[in-house]
Amino acid sequence: MNTSIDLGSTGLEVLGRDECLALMKTVPVGRIVFTEGALPAIQPVNFALDGDSVVIRIGIGSKLALAAKSAVVAFECDEFDEQGMTGWSVVLIGRAEAVGGENEKRRLADLRITPWALGSRAHYLRIVPEIVRGRRILTHVPAV
Amino acid sequence: MNTSIDLGSTGLEVLGRDECLALMKTVPVGRIVFTEGALPAIQPVNFALDGDSVVIRIGIGSKLALAAKSAVVAFECDEFDEQGMTGWSVVLIGRAEAVGGENEKRRLADLRITPWALGSRAHYLRIVPEIVRGRRILTHVPAV
Repeated sequence: MNTSIDLGSTGLEVLGRDECLALMKTVPVGRIVFTEGALPAIQPVNFALDGDSVVIRIGIGSKLALAAKSAVVAFECDEFDEQGMTGWSVVLIGRAEAVGGENEKRRLADLRITPWALGSRAHYLRIVPEIVRGRRILTHVPAV
Repeated sequence: MNTSIDLGSTGLEVLGRDECLALMKTVPVGRIVFTEGALPAIQPVNFALDGDSVVIRIGIGSKLALAAKSAVVAFECDEFDEQGMTGWSVVLIGRAEAVGGENEKRRLADLRITPWALGSRAHYLRIVPEIVRGRRILTHVPAV
């Protein structure tokens, strides 16, 4: 075994922050995790990175906008290869903030986040990560 | 527009429970959403359906085992097509229960859930869904 690889307690390779952010840039969809009426909630969204912040587009009256605004949320991205039984996952945790100011909105428009779903999503939510964690499945050895 | 399609408020097609469960059977990885130290947490896992319950394998002392046991959790599966800008997502919400009894464990072993990650996961967690929700992106029309 290559001892330079940081293996977590679950036998997964622990990824550094920079690698986590680089991997996130390779996928168009992530999942925002929040609380809705005291229940855990998760919703896939198109997103982009602005520095190390996650930016998503939301409808102003959407459930997501109401539930996630100013809340601590998680944001997850992953990619799995069924044939190789491998893959990676990155999770950010941070506070979700509505983006205000027309100048800032114009700047974020350059990120060209294109929601695949129908419907107006003229507003932006930013998640500033406090914690960034990533794991990669190294090699498949079936567990007993 | 085909008026027989149930469109949710977000412009996504609302999927029925049976279709949700059928779609879940087509993917090997889902994501369990729970709370860990008052923070939202999410972890990808290999899973199988046992009837309409989600069954996953866990290590006995794992964070997931400690945090999710007897808690209300969400479980999400999805599949997205970047070229077609389309995809679907299913979310279950229910209580996670440790599976007890050797007979039951032997029966669940027949589900052949193979964790891709290394490490012993000799125990089972079952999520009995109270709520099953699914959405599909119908057609891509870029939002303004």
